[in-house]
Amino acid sequence: MSLMRIGEKPEIARLPLFRDMDDAMRERVLSGSFLQVFPPQLTLFERGRQADFLHVLVDGLVELYVSGTGRDTTMKIVEPVTSFIVAAVMTDLPYLMSARTLTSSRVLLVPAALMREVIRKDTALMQATMHELALGYRDMVRALTDMKLRQSAERLANHLLEFSAQRGNAWDFELSGEKRVLASLLGMTPENLSRAFGTLKEQGVSVNGARVRIEDRAALAAFARPDPVPADR
Amino acid sequence: MSLMRIGEKPEIARLPLFRDMDDAMRERVLSGSFLQVFPPQLTLFERGRQADFLHVLVDGLVELYVSGTGRDTTMKIVEPVTSFIVAAVMTDLPYLMSARTLTSSRVLLVPAALMREVIRKDTALMQATMHELALGYRDMVRALTDMKLRQSAERLANHLLEFSAQRGNAWDFELSGEKRVLASLLGMTPENLSRAFGTLKEQGVSVNGARVRIEDRAALAAFARPDPVPADR
Repeated sequence: MSLMRIGEKPEIARLPLFRDMDDAMRERVLSGSFLQVFPPQLTLFERGRQADFLHVLVDGLVELYVSGTGRDTTMKIVEPVTSFIVAAVMTDLPYLMSARTLTSSRVLLVPAALMREVIRKDTALMQATMHELALGYRDMVRALTDMKLRQSAERLANHLLEFSAQRGNAWDFELSGEKRVLASLLGMTPENLSRAFGTLKEQGVSVNGARVRIEDRAALAAFARPDPVPADR
Repeated sequence: MSLMRIGEKPEIARLPLFRDMDDAMRERVLSGSFLQVFPPQLTLFERGRQADFLHVLVDGLVELYVSGTGRDTTMKIVEPVTSFIVAAVMTDLPYLMSARTLTSSRVLLVPAALMREVIRKDTALMQATMHELALGYRDMVRALTDMKLRQSAERLANHLLEFSAQRGNAWDFELSGEKRVLASLLGMTPENLSRAFGTLKEQGVSVNGARVRIEDRAALAAFARPDPVPADR
């Protein structure tokens, strides 16, 4: 782990979370924080641990997951630039999820106590945090709806459509993370995921390793029955 | 629907959400709000609609649910006194869930625009809202973990243990809502729920209509494998 100067990364100051706050307060938060590089497959924190830091993923890819007895499930794949997990930091309660890097990742570590202290003084930061928590809540509502109302191939179809939408409606793109992680995120075994990709072939989806091609967006959307409420971001 | 005077219900002012705010600001919120009684099975709002009101359930029972094409799933059973759905109100985004009364319910309707306006001026209200959103996020994380990591009988066992814990660890209690709603909440069909109750008989759970008796909490907990992180509330 190497320590880096935060000034190198102006995008941190432009994060929605920190953008509107008082300049002096932002400086206080950033000068009390650490920017560190972590290797792939490193556990950043574990479920049940008290939240010592707010994490902000600056580069790389992070998996939020939960281990049950003998089972393990991916809850979210965090892409840069995103903070996690604000809820545990704000409430000073133990993490409900564990986090590990999927690739080499650069993470800003903001001490939780510092974050809570500055939030009480800076209304813009508090408002931004509130907004972030609300979007996080809505994300989880969508994930739970998806898990309860859709069959596995429909979940995969929806995931591909959203992934493509986040990349400017690309027809051809590279999935992030391993297929094992994607299967777990969608609540499937790797074998189920392969079968689901097989089912989507009939809807014009071709897959070659991590590379996916959507031939017919309309056909895929008809199959996926996307949410009536469009994505927040 | 009958309009009621809010002064009749001092517990609204004692709600965690409104407790610490400035008295004059609270008076502004409450005098701009409506307290109404709704009959059972009345739809309060539908997914996709813009959030016009923050709802606070004062008496009764409310179901948050999502309808897919031909499918329907219970997301949460709201018990008094609880607000719903803060995330849509704060972000001014459409509801992701619908709400309907399960029994005759008294609901405080706080205009969303009023809520957003007062929040910007009252730091204590903003902080309380932030806390509420964080707890709501954690609730959804738990529900998704439950759905992804547990078999149906384990989900039922966990639900019974939590329900009992919320009632001072009662051994003998009445379930709220119909069994159909409970099945949907736990992601099961009514037939699956009956089978799950059958499985739990071996762990000392007896059920008679809506009345449940837990004979051996330790045996049930061993079967349920409860979360390592205890419930927030």
